[in-house]
Amino acid sequence: MEDQTQQEQASPEVHKRIQESFGRQGLMSHLGARISHIAPGRVHIVLPARPEVTQQHGYFHAGATSAIADSAGGYAAYTLFPEGTDVLTVEYKINLLAPAEGDHLEAVGTVLKSGRTLTVCQLEVFGVRDGTKKLVANGQQTLIRINPPA
Amino acid sequence: MEDQTQQEQASPEVHKRIQESFGRQGLMSHLGARISHIAPGRVHIVLPARPEVTQQHGYFHAGATSAIADSAGGYAAYTLFPEGTDVLTVEYKINLLAPAEGDHLEAVGTVLKSGRTLTVCQLEVFGVRDGTKKLVANGQQTLIRINPPA
Amino acid sequence: MEDQTQQEQASPEVHKRIQESFGRQGLMSHLGARISHIAPGRVHIVLPARPEVTQQHGYFHAGATSAIADSAGGYAAYTLFPEGTDVLTVEYKINLLAPAEGDHLEAVGTVLKSGRTLTVCQLEVFGVRDGTKKLVANGQQTLIRINPPA
Amino acid sequence: MEDQTQQEQASPEVHKRIQESFGRQGLMSHLGARISHIAPGRVHIVLPARPEVTQQHGYFHAGATSAIADSAGGYAAYTLFPEGTDVLTVEYKINLLAPAEGDHLEAVGTVLKSGRTLTVCQLEVFGVRDGTKKLVANGQQTLIRINPPA
Repeated sequence: MEDQTQQEQASPEVHKRIQESFGRQGLMSHLGARISHIAPGRVHIVLPARPEVTQQHGYFHAGATSAIADSAGGYAAYTLFPEGTDVLTVEYKINLLAPAEGDHLEAVGTVLKSGRTLTVCQLEVFGVRDGTKKLVANGQQTLIRINPPA
Repeated sequence: MEDQTQQEQASPEVHKRIQESFGRQGLMSHLGARISHIAPGRVHIVLPARPEVTQQHGYFHAGATSAIADSAGGYAAYTLFPEGTDVLTVEYKINLLAPAEGDHLEAVGTVLKSGRTLTVCQLEVFGVRDGTKKLVANGQQTLIRINPPA
Repeated sequence: MEDQTQQEQASPEVHKRIQESFGRQGLMSHLGARISHIAPGRVHIVLPARPEVTQQHGYFHAGATSAIADSAGGYAAYTLFPEGTDVLTVEYKINLLAPAEGDHLEAVGTVLKSGRTLTVCQLEVFGVRDGTKKLVANGQQTLIRINPPA
Repeated sequence: MEDQTQQEQASPEVHKRIQESFGRQGLMSHLGARISHIAPGRVHIVLPARPEVTQQHGYFHAGATSAIADSAGGYAAYTLFPEGTDVLTVEYKINLLAPAEGDHLEAVGTVLKSGRTLTVCQLEVFGVRDGTKKLVANGQQTLIRINPPA
C-alpha cells in the first residue's frame, strides 16, 4: 500500500470533504495542526513545536502526539468511505518510542484493513528537525463507519 | 484500592511535586485542564467543555479525552514514586465508549500495579453534566520510572 | 455491574448456548480449560497448571493466559446477545502484570459497554494457589456482534 | 529494517539460544508450532492447522494466533539482547483482521525499537494456503529485558 498511496492523490471531492471536517475540529486548530497530505488510505497531519503543546520537560505532550495520530488515522479511513457516511474512533493503542521533539511532528495514518463496518489503521508519528525524520510514536487504531446524525 | 484511594489524601510533598510538574505541561493549561484530586495511586483531571477541545461534531475530541487520561494516569503513578524520580508514558490503549459530552470531562487514573521499573494504570474518563457522570472512555496504560535529566 | 453479575445467574438457554459454543473450541479443550461461571455480562474460565501450557521458565505462557482471557470476554459479551447472533473478537490488549503461576489460572471477562454492534469487555486473569488469588494479567477487548454464517 | 532482516541471518549462538528457549515452551510444542526463521530483529513462527487450535467455527482461535505472535515478537527482541539476559512480554495489543484460516499460520515478529530496558515489536500473522499469504492479525508489543533468575 505504501508505494501506491505515496504516489496517488485523493479526488478533489475527498480532499474537500476531509478539509471541511478537519476545519470543524476545534482541537486541531487550537493545537496549531494542519493536514499536509491526503491520499487514498493515507493522511498526514503536521503539528509545529510551540509551548502550548508541551509536557513537563518541553517535549511534545503524549496527548498532542496522540491527538494528531488519532485524527490522521480517522481521516485516512475516511478517504475510503462513500459520501454521506462518517467515521468514529473505536479505540487506539500507541507506544511512545522516544522523546517527541523537533521543529514539528508529522503524524501518518495508513489504512491496514478497510471493512464494511470496521477499519484498522496504522499510526506513526515522526519528529522532524531540519528535514530529518525520527519515529517517535507508533500505534494501531480501530474505527467504525457511521451514518451522520440526522 | 478504590475505597482506600478515595478517602486517603496524598502528602503535601506529593501534592506540591505533582502540581509543579502539571504546571509545566503547556498542553494542559492550553486545553484548560486542571487537577481536581490527588490521592496515593489515584489522580483526577477535569477538562471543561469549550470549542477549543472539540472534534467535528462538537463533542470532546478523542485527542483531548486521551490527553487528560494520559496525564491522570501518569500522575497517579507519580504519587507512588520516590522523590527525585520521574515518569514517562510507555504506551496506552483507550476505548472511546460513547460520544464525549457534558459540562466537563473528568479523567481518573488509578494504579493497578506499581513495580520498581514499570507501573500499569487504569484510565477512565467520565462526561459530567449537572453532576451526573457517564463513562465515555476506558483505557490501560504502561509507565516507566526514570531518573530526571541532569 | 460487579455485584449484580456476581449474584445473578444467566438463563438456562444462555448457559446451554455458551457451553455448546465453548465445546466446539478445539483450543480450549486442548489446553484443558473449562467454564466455571456464567452470569449476565460475566464469564469465568479456569485453566489448570500443566507442562503443556508453559513458557520457558515454567510459568503459564502469555499465549495461554491470553487465550482464556479472550474466550472469557467473548462469552461475557455473548451472554447479552440475542439468540441467533454470534460474536467475534475485533481486538484486545493485555498487560502481563506478574509471572502467571498457581494451581490454576482464572480468567474473568466482564462487559463494560454493550452496544448494538460493538461490545467492550474488561479482562482479568488471576493466578490461584491454595484458594489465594493474585491478579497476573489485565486487559481490554473489543468485540463485534455478527449473524452466523448461513 | 525489512530488507536487512530478510537477508541477514542471526549468528549460530543466537540461533542456539532461541531454539533452546523455544524448546522449553511447553505451549508451543503442545500447539504444534515451530520456528521457521531467525534473523536479527525478526523471527517467524509457523502453526499448522489442526482441530486442536480452533475456535467454534473451525478457524484458528484468536488465542492460538496471539500465542505464536507473542512468541515471535519475544524472540525477535531476544535476537538483539546480549547473552545472559532474558525477555518478558510487558503487554501487547492485537487486531484480528480476518478469519484466521489456511494450511498454516505464519507469525512474524519484527523489532521496531530496541532500547536498553524496553523493546517494541510489530506483530503480524498471515494465513497461508497453497503458498498464498493473507494478513489475518496485526499487533504491537512491549517487552522488557531482564536478568535470568538466579
